[in-house]
Amino acid sequence: MSKAFTLTDYLLERLRELGADRVFGVPGDFTLAMLDHIGRDGRLQWVGCANELGAGYAADGYARVRGIGVLCTTFGVGELSAINAIAGSFAEYVPVVHVVGAPSRAVQAARNCTHHSLGTGDFGVFERMAHEVVCAHATLDEHDACAEIDRVLRTVMSQRRPGYIVMPSDLADLPVRAPEAPLARSSDTTDPDALRQFSRDARALLQHASSVSLLADVLVQRMGAEPNLHSLIDAGDIPHATLLSGRRVVNEEHPAYLGTYNGAASEPAVRAAIEEAEVLIKAGVRFTDLTSGFFSQHLAIDRLIDIGPHASSVAGRQYGPIELADALDALHAVFVDRAPLPRTERHRVAGHRHDEAHASAALSQSTLWQTVSEALRPGDLLIAEQGTSFYGLGAHRLPDDVLFIGQPLWASIGYTLPALLGASLAAPRRRPVLLIGDGSAQLTIAELGTMIRQHVNAIIVVVNNDGYTVERAIHGADAAYNDIARWDWTALPAALGKGRSSYSACASTPAELREALACARASGDRLSLIEAVVPGMDVPPLLRELGKAAGAVNEGPAGHAPTEAEAAG
Amino acid sequence: MSKAFTLTDYLLERLRELGADRVFGVPGDFTLAMLDHIGRDGRLQWVGCANELGAGYAADGYARVRGIGVLCTTFGVGELSAINAIAGSFAEYVPVVHVVGAPSRAVQAARNCTHHSLGTGDFGVFERMAHEVVCAHATLDEHDACAEIDRVLRTVMSQRRPGYIVMPSDLADLPVRAPEAPLARSSDTTDPDALRQFSRDARALLQHASSVSLLADVLVQRMGAEPNLHSLIDAGDIPHATLLSGRRVVNEEHPAYLGTYNGAASEPAVRAAIEEAEVLIKAGVRFTDLTSGFFSQHLAIDRLIDIGPHASSVAGRQYGPIELADALDALHAVFVDRAPLPRTERHRVAGHRHDEAHASAALSQSTLWQTVSEALRPGDLLIAEQGTSFYGLGAHRLPDDVLFIGQPLWASIGYTLPALLGASLAAPRRRPVLLIGDGSAQLTIAELGTMIRQHVNAIIVVVNNDGYTVERAIHGADAAYNDIARWDWTALPAALGKGRSSYSACASTPAELREALACARASGDRLSLIEAVVPGMDVPPLLRELGKAAGAVNEGPAGHAPTEAEAAG
Repeated sequence: MSKAFTLTDYLLERLRELGADRVFGVPGDFTLAMLDHIGRDGRLQWVGCANELGAGYAADGYARVRGIGVLCTTFGVGELSAINAIAGSFAEYVPVVHVVGAPSRAVQAARNCTHHSLGTGDFGVFERMAHEVVCAHATLDEHDACAEIDRVLRTVMSQRRPGYIVMPSDLADLPVRAPEAPLARSSDTTDPDALRQFSRDARALLQHASSVSLLADVLVQRMGAEPNLHSLIDAGDIPHATLLSGRRVVNEEHPAYLGTYNGAASEPAVRAAIEEAEVLIKAGVRFTDLTSGFFSQHLAIDRLIDIGPHASSVAGRQYGPIELADALDALHAVFVDRAPLPRTERHRVAGHRHDEAHASAALSQSTLWQTVSEALRPGDLLIAEQGTSFYGLGAHRLPDDVLFIGQPLWASIGYTLPALLGASLAAPRRRPVLLIGDGSAQLTIAELGTMIRQHVNAIIVVVNNDGYTVERAIHGADAAYNDIARWDWTALPAALGKGRSSYSACASTPAELREALACARASGDRLSLIEAVVPGMDVPPLLRELGKAAGAVNEGPAGHAPTEAEAAG
Repeated sequence: MSKAFTLTDYLLERLRELGADRVFGVPGDFTLAMLDHIGRDGRLQWVGCANELGAGYAADGYARVRGIGVLCTTFGVGELSAINAIAGSFAEYVPVVHVVGAPSRAVQAARNCTHHSLGTGDFGVFERMAHEVVCAHATLDEHDACAEIDRVLRTVMSQRRPGYIVMPSDLADLPVRAPEAPLARSSDTTDPDALRQFSRDARALLQHASSVSLLADVLVQRMGAEPNLHSLIDAGDIPHATLLSGRRVVNEEHPAYLGTYNGAASEPAVRAAIEEAEVLIKAGVRFTDLTSGFFSQHLAIDRLIDIGPHASSVAGRQYGPIELADALDALHAVFVDRAPLPRTERHRVAGHRHDEAHASAALSQSTLWQTVSEALRPGDLLIAEQGTSFYGLGAHRLPDDVLFIGQPLWASIGYTLPALLGASLAAPRRRPVLLIGDGSAQLTIAELGTMIRQHVNAIIVVVNNDGYTVERAIHGADAAYNDIARWDWTALPAALGKGRSSYSACASTPAELREALACARASGDRLSLIEAVVPGMDVPPLLRELGKAAGAVNEGPAGHAPTEAEAAG
């Protein structure tokens, strides 16, 4: 094997520089020369997955924690199997680099009827498809391959969205010069004048306000501004809430934390604190139908300071470009200067009520999520599938420093199981906990085997409610199309992890679930799967509200579709 | 529920008219109104799959048997998960109709940040992506929805490639008039003058030829011309071969059948009979790298009659448009008139040598495929994964009337398991037999549960050779990236079919495999899974040859990539 520094080495070196230490994927003959380089020096490891969609979700989960994720698949068949994951990374601002191994340039030039192609001689088809769901893409050639790699990676890092790089198989071992300097990042785009004006006008609005609240969402994390947010909250002791999608950006045990805001579906006290504050600060918020009660938020623009990823506004007036962190710091300066906010009686999300009387009753959605939330610990890595898990947990406060991942905009069922694989490899010191329904888990179950192979000590709760309950809540409560095949869930860890130790249990009561969760927590080095059996038509209240709204919107045009503009007006 | 005839009813009525009695898919909230209509009258049944890629492969397998397949998924997440399957249907000429349930027109017009969208307000993204891999597409609206449905379906039926129809959720129940007449098909495109000239020139070439051979491939089946091919072969008693991709188009027990032709990798007698015939008739042949020994075919154009789907040629001169069946009928007329071909000694593929001495030795690729081929029966539905299964079986003759399915151009690993689900529902009287490797089966294993739920009595042989042997043959024989997670294969039918009866066994010798296959055959009403253990680096000879060639081509440009044009010259 040649020791020359190759184009593959260049690409891998850049990816390591950005923080990646894993590459997720499935091998294919057009990628094999690249794969020879991965793991050669031990700084970057290959994580072979059962299929490409699983690998794509895993890379996305990894990137949400690490700030960069890498997926490697083969041309045509492999990349298209993963493209749903890439589109999800685009929708949810997740920086994943998708590297595709392609037929050699000679094969492409000859327009051969080659395996993994459409047989038409057109080898540009799949890059044109990827173009729709990435922020930058390139097919490498010998002239400017290194510069093209740098261009794609720089765009990915500034836009926090996926990029796509095609490596023809004959170029993988092309000798190139190693990078001489770190990847030049996009310079800070904040305009000092814009920031000055923003600060002045925000100060005027905030200076004498008798009540200020703050609503944060996940884009604060994506832009790397969590420390800035926490400083601002502490400086002003500002009452704050997050959207369900933004649970990871604040500490829910903070004394000024209100709860989650879901538009009209919020708890009344949270809704009042957010909608009736004299001034509201929105930080990194993107309202989506499923996190806003179908755009039922009512926020008065003239009392709003809205901080976006690259621009901000005060009472409707726009300032930019301003990076999100810089805008937060500007507000921090205001609160350092101004008088403390008057203390008001603060709403608290109901604590963990523990009702021993019902410990041996059949599990319900209510007791399920109460029991699960009691079992969470500070530092856990928690992923909740967009369904009863995401909304059921929405009513419970998370312990300090829990890393929370959901996918409420793209909302691709089955996402969370492989995402847990990726996220747990990115955060090896955290205990991974996955909450997922049976219908969702069927889509991506094969990566359970990958998790066991990778020694991930996840605690997985599979909510067995006999089908697609999230769909039943919207339409077709008793319809056969919302049924699924019946699986023996507790048999799966052994079947997909031959020769490996694992723990599984089935729980039908709160007491059984509590015991199973304790056993799983105690067995620190192996994967645990707990099947929690609940009735099929028991739906968390928040999801029931949303389901009704979704059904009405889908039936339109009589069911009027509210827009964000209307709702915010 | 309204009894009015709706747009969904119109679409389903047309699909039934074309021969579909199943719809494959995964429900999503944008499709639920459509799903209410499926199964209402019992003529069209919903087959809920574990995930969308599985559903897409199943629809493809169904369409290969039925001539039409239907897939129904939800917007964004669902359709993109299945798009690899659709691209495969395009590459391999399989008429699948992909129906996508989308957000209502009101939601799209408002450009809302809606779940399953990218959040950009652009709802045309996914149709633009589909455009690259379908032959016709439409987003329905209230003005001309029925005409648009007819246009897409007519194109699918004439081009034998997938189509794509988007149904906004608010249109599913739009009242429309029922179809008044059957779908107008594209009229026969054969031009009588072109056919006359083709017949005249073909007759001149064939009239006095002392040897004629015929090479057929799967496009004969796609164009519905198998009966015409069989008549031609019988009229001339023409020695004939197929590509590995075309095994289903002729009866391999026919006295004039030579075997399979794989370019330079063919058995010498087959190669000589095809390449040295005075005249060669090619029928529905498309050489691909993996079915031509990387374009190593040598066919002299001046002695070639080449019959394509819509045009034909004689000694390099083109005639068209001529439908494939019409061209075959024209040649049939020539052979009815001319003197019989002289009988020559004919090559036969080696028969089933049954070597009792090795019945208790460890299974090898050689004894595995010999044992499997002995267990096949006339009428079986046989699907072989593109890997050791496809090539291992290539050396064995199939019994009469075996329906054979492979995917040698698109070659997406994992395809065959869901394809078997679809094909077996399309051909319920045939016994389904699946041959698949362990690496491939991991990609799509979840549909094993769907098969059991659908009462498919498949005999599934999982070749456990501890990883991606087809990749090892090309590159990285001992590399860790060609390893996979270890699964307990025989535990899976029970785990994925809770409460259902199934049979599983592990075979390590020919005797054990023979017994397991007999048990599986005897248990006529349940699914059987047989794990056949073979050494990881034992590779069928044909695949070994191809692997070496693939490795050289991928490394190019030193490894010269031959083109079909060069090879045929």
